[in-house]
Amino acid sequence: MTNQYFIIFSALGSICALLFAVFMARRALSFSEGTDRMKKIASFIRQGANAYLRRQYSVVLVFFGCMFAVLCLMAALGFLTWFVPFAFITGGFFSGLSGFVGMKIATASNSRTANACRESLNSGLQVAFSAGTVMGFTVVGLGLLDISGWYLLLKYVFGLPLNDITAAMLTFGMGASSMALFARVGGGIFTKAADVGADLVGKVEAGIPEDDPRNPAAIADNVGDNVGDVAGMGADLYESYVGSLISSCSLGVIAFGYIESVDNLSAFAVPMLIAAVGVVASIIGSLLVRTGESTDQMNLLRALRRGTNTSAVIIAVAAFPIVWFLLGSSYIGLYVAILAGLFSGVLIGRFTEYYTSDTYVPTQNLAASSVTGTATLVIDGLSLGMRSTMLPVLTVSGCILIAYYVSGLGLEEAARNAMGLYGIALAAVGMLSTLGITLATDAYGPVADNAGGIAQMSGLDPVVRERTDALDSLGNTTAATGKGFAIGSAALTALALIASYVEKVETLAPEMALDMSVMNPVVLVGIFVGACLAFIFAAITMGSVGKAAHSVVLEVRRQFKEIPGIIEGTADADFARCVDLCTRASLKEMVVPTLIAVGVPIVGGLLLGPAGVIGLLCGATASGFLLAVFMSNSGGSWDNAKKYVESGHYGGKGSKNDKSAIVGDTIGDPFKDTSGPAINILIKLLSMVSIVFATVVVNFHIFG
Amino acid sequence: MTNQYFIIFSALGSICALLFAVFMARRALSFSEGTDRMKKIASFIRQGANAYLRRQYSVVLVFFGCMFAVLCLMAALGFLTWFVPFAFITGGFFSGLSGFVGMKIATASNSRTANACRESLNSGLQVAFSAGTVMGFTVVGLGLLDISGWYLLLKYVFGLPLNDITAAMLTFGMGASSMALFARVGGGIFTKAADVGADLVGKVEAGIPEDDPRNPAAIADNVGDNVGDVAGMGADLYESYVGSLISSCSLGVIAFGYIESVDNLSAFAVPMLIAAVGVVASIIGSLLVRTGESTDQMNLLRALRRGTNTSAVIIAVAAFPIVWFLLGSSYIGLYVAILAGLFSGVLIGRFTEYYTSDTYVPTQNLAASSVTGTATLVIDGLSLGMRSTMLPVLTVSGCILIAYYVSGLGLEEAARNAMGLYGIALAAVGMLSTLGITLATDAYGPVADNAGGIAQMSGLDPVVRERTDALDSLGNTTAATGKGFAIGSAALTALALIASYVEKVETLAPEMALDMSVMNPVVLVGIFVGACLAFIFAAITMGSVGKAAHSVVLEVRRQFKEIPGIIEGTADADFARCVDLCTRASLKEMVVPTLIAVGVPIVGGLLLGPAGVIGLLCGATASGFLLAVFMSNSGGSWDNAKKYVESGHYGGKGSKNDKSAIVGDTIGDPFKDTSGPAINILIKLLSMVSIVFATVVVNFHIFG
Repeated sequence: MTNQYFIIFSALGSICALLFAVFMARRALSFSEGTDRMKKIASFIRQGANAYLRRQYSVVLVFFGCMFAVLCLMAALGFLTWFVPFAFITGGFFSGLSGFVGMKIATASNSRTANACRESLNSGLQVAFSAGTVMGFTVVGLGLLDISGWYLLLKYVFGLPLNDITAAMLTFGMGASSMALFARVGGGIFTKAADVGADLVGKVEAGIPEDDPRNPAAIADNVGDNVGDVAGMGADLYESYVGSLISSCSLGVIAFGYIESVDNLSAFAVPMLIAAVGVVASIIGSLLVRTGESTDQMNLLRALRRGTNTSAVIIAVAAFPIVWFLLGSSYIGLYVAILAGLFSGVLIGRFTEYYTSDTYVPTQNLAASSVTGTATLVIDGLSLGMRSTMLPVLTVSGCILIAYYVSGLGLEEAARNAMGLYGIALAAVGMLSTLGITLATDAYGPVADNAGGIAQMSGLDPVVRERTDALDSLGNTTAATGKGFAIGSAALTALALIASYVEKVETLAPEMALDMSVMNPVVLVGIFVGACLAFIFAAITMGSVGKAAHSVVLEVRRQFKEIPGIIEGTADADFARCVDLCTRASLKEMVVPTLIAVGVPIVGGLLLGPAGVIGLLCGATASGFLLAVFMSNSGGSWDNAKKYVESGHYGGKGSKNDKSAIVGDTIGDPFKDTSGPAINILIKLLSMVSIVFATVVVNFHIFG
Repeated sequence: MTNQYFIIFSALGSICALLFAVFMARRALSFSEGTDRMKKIASFIRQGANAYLRRQYSVVLVFFGCMFAVLCLMAALGFLTWFVPFAFITGGFFSGLSGFVGMKIATASNSRTANACRESLNSGLQVAFSAGTVMGFTVVGLGLLDISGWYLLLKYVFGLPLNDITAAMLTFGMGASSMALFARVGGGIFTKAADVGADLVGKVEAGIPEDDPRNPAAIADNVGDNVGDVAGMGADLYESYVGSLISSCSLGVIAFGYIESVDNLSAFAVPMLIAAVGVVASIIGSLLVRTGESTDQMNLLRALRRGTNTSAVIIAVAAFPIVWFLLGSSYIGLYVAILAGLFSGVLIGRFTEYYTSDTYVPTQNLAASSVTGTATLVIDGLSLGMRSTMLPVLTVSGCILIAYYVSGLGLEEAARNAMGLYGIALAAVGMLSTLGITLATDAYGPVADNAGGIAQMSGLDPVVRERTDALDSLGNTTAATGKGFAIGSAALTALALIASYVEKVETLAPEMALDMSVMNPVVLVGIFVGACLAFIFAAITMGSVGKAAHSVVLEVRRQFKEIPGIIEGTADADFARCVDLCTRASLKEMVVPTLIAVGVPIVGGLLLGPAGVIGLLCGATASGFLLAVFMSNSGGSWDNAKKYVESGHYGGKGSKNDKSAIVGDTIGDPFKDTSGPAINILIKLLSMVSIVFATVVVNFHIFG
């Protein structure tokens, strides 16, 4: 069979993606940075972001060093192969690199976007979207590169059999997830601490507008967008992308191990080829994104949708021959699974939009509840977020059932089950196949947001701010869609990883008769503890934002008091100090959540055994999925309800109702930008850690 | 064996409890109602509460009528025995009666408590605690009466075998749970709509104090305490008590079906006798509750703790011979299970207290975060509630593992599993065995709260209000403990009911080879949907409070505007209209949640099959438990943080920080008094409905 050449295609896909990223980066950088004042502000932001990342990486390095030592020790003791520690490191490295590249281009493009907006809305969109595209394709390109590289190394240099290759690959997922969690949590705390601090003192107490150069936390706020929404998201989605690919490769190899007539290398090839085709589809889609001069939301949205929809259609068409020729017509059910994933991703994105955009009833009603005060606004916002979990849960549930049953049709039991799980993993791959472009539409938002800040701080013509606002506002909608994809794929990938864990345990200890019944008390207790873990994680990250914001508030108040002339505009605020404060606070706070995520599955496993771990992973996935949707949507809706009020409804900007809406927005900040997205990573990291430490847990555990 | 006489003891226990309730009622009613003004206000409250309950029962009657018809139809088709519809009705009737009696005595005792407080704190405590005791013992007495009565009827009149008796009994649990859900949701919405409405307009906008007679919603607020916190709680805990007893009886009969050497009637007798002994222990404990004249919290708390602790010790001692003599020394592990339950209940209560009482750090820190504004207070409160789930989850998890493993020690697999589940059910019985007194200490709170309102509205000497406030404040602490018991026992009972469901399905379709593995996609989807259900339920009930409160706000504003002289005190507000408004709003809103709770397990079962239902129940139990703890504790902590601020910290009453704290308290109202407690009932009702409709689901389902 010629299917072993698939790796050439996926490597080619990776190179295409990276070249396209370079091309788009050059395009973005070809624009002018604008006036001296703009350059100066942009350089402040750049320096702050660089300084943050440098220090973040040094903390992360310590963690990775320790974990590397632990993994080497385990390898020396024979619990792991020697590839694992190195795979772990590369996963972390590439995840970090994805975020770093994204942040670099974003901080280089913000002033260029602002400057382009002086010319026209379309130019602004071109610059910002190019920057977003760079990140999208860097993530995809590095992801494919990592997997292809390891495949080539393990197969052709070390000559490992396919099963061992996929097993080793799962472990670099753990590296990627750990890095992603650091980036998301650290960046998320930074950005929201700065944002909350800037808003509370600047807007509410001192009464100066957002992004005002007099606000000492204004630069920190803009730095936060880059380190949280850009670098954090890059690392996060690298992890999602790689996680979905390696879990499906691994489950595919197992499933087609039952099938005599098909080489199981083909099952490995399918997700890789779909990813490669996804690169091409995303490039085509990206090139279609352009707009006219109307700042009308729908117009801009249509421009982006044209790109994403075209890509999705290309994938939907191209996946058919891939499945058909590689696996044969008997397994065409797997194509349906891919479609189900692709379609579910779009659906969840739409639901997210429905609940969070102020063009729909839920957020408009939420804005209306500001009339009866802050308390009712908060109650209704929480209620909205909880209610909004229903449709995504039903969609993911439907997707799971369809993918599982259609994939396994006509097979006998053991094979049917394995094929069904492969189908679920492929659904996640389908959902993320267009990541290149969906991430581009998501990542351009923070660039536009920064551009607005620079426009404001440089005193540009108000029409520039209007244009950047139009871009930014659209960014909120696409961010909602992006979050939908991230959450939906996280749930499916987590399930695929749990299945991989089960497989691993059964391979390690076939004699153990793993009882995964929910009536087995260790499974049940595992479910309780796992579900609780997501709550604890949300609590800690929220609490961290609160603590960090508190210190920013005090610092900003101090500067207003101690540095005379700030408010009058005659003296410069000490921006660097606020940036430094946020950096220190967020780095301090990001360690505990990561240790919990790594520690609990190990400790839980040693206590409750493998069956307990499986319960724990299921519980964490279910409750994590719900909390992530709930928190993201509550937060998004409060944000847009505030915008809706400030655009002239229910009293408009500065009214009593607006004050309530601002409080809602502030509460929503850590919800949607810190805790919610971090939980997505958590649920996968838990599974990855469990897989890597499975040997230890299987050999030493108390109950179960 | 003489163990068949156990039923005489439990019937005697029931009679003792009811007689003691009558005795305490007479004692409470022997006090004077006070001045004419006090009598008048008390009669307003009484009328409002009566009117509400009358209309609530008429709505409930329609539901019960429909369900009765459905159950009769199913019996006619052979899916159920003919006992089921009638058992369903009696469960609902007694649950409603428990709430009704509690409400009657509470509304009769509020002015008496206020009047007794004119004399001394101890007198006030005696009246209020007597009223609480009436409710506690009514619930326990009626619960034992219902079970004993049905046992006698089914055994001696219809001659049913023991297995069929326990199966029929499970169905009156469904009646009790349905009634409880109506009472909790309806009452919960009423009380919080009135409370929020009264606070938002009266305290915040018009600037008049709480319980001021000029506030048009003041009476509705007091009525709410009675219909929500008293009648709702009575129905709720009746349901918990009966649920734990019947599920353990049922699992015990199954478990000892495997054991040749012990008559399985003994396994039925154990929980019944423990309940009967619990009555005696609670009576002894109640008689020990008395206090001196210091309004010091610790002093009062010690008085109540003396009662509850004594009761717990008596049970702990008496349970040993019950298990030993009825089941034999080989099964003494079951005694350990009972102890584990008893001890876990106490622990969870203490954790709740730690997180919600302002004598501990968490709530004090929460109060401190009011300094940086409403947003940080809300974020920190949510974070606190989520964090507070950890210890209760670990406690319940530990209790499950201990109860399961210790009970099944030394048995072979099938018997070990059954005995372990019986152990878990007995742990719930242990936890609730002292319900007579724990409920008394919980139910006296609303009486004291009402007494304070009456004292305020009648213009009594401020020292009276001080005394009622001391009682009320303590009530908040005991309510926290009570909630801990309610939540912990709900989780254990729900698990026991799920086990009963599994048993029922296996009996109905032994050939089906029920696959309850979490890797079975229907189980997994069930877990997702079930977990989501708890979120949806919380969202709906919170949203309902928001809606109902909105209408109260508008009405109060209207009265202030349209009725001249209210603020000056020269004209009476139209109290009745506010009461009527709350009644209508809450009755309208309570229907949908109940229909969801009844409908989802049936529809879900028809789609996903029995294994899917089991997943659904597990998911709902885990996420429901977490949400209930989270919401109760966030709410409780906000409430006490406000009290802490108002007692003179961080600016004290009327300060900017106090305004933030009031907003937090208002957000917490539906959290702790509507959604949280209703979820406890939900998770059991779901299981009960599943059990009753198991035959239909087993015979007709699509997936699974």
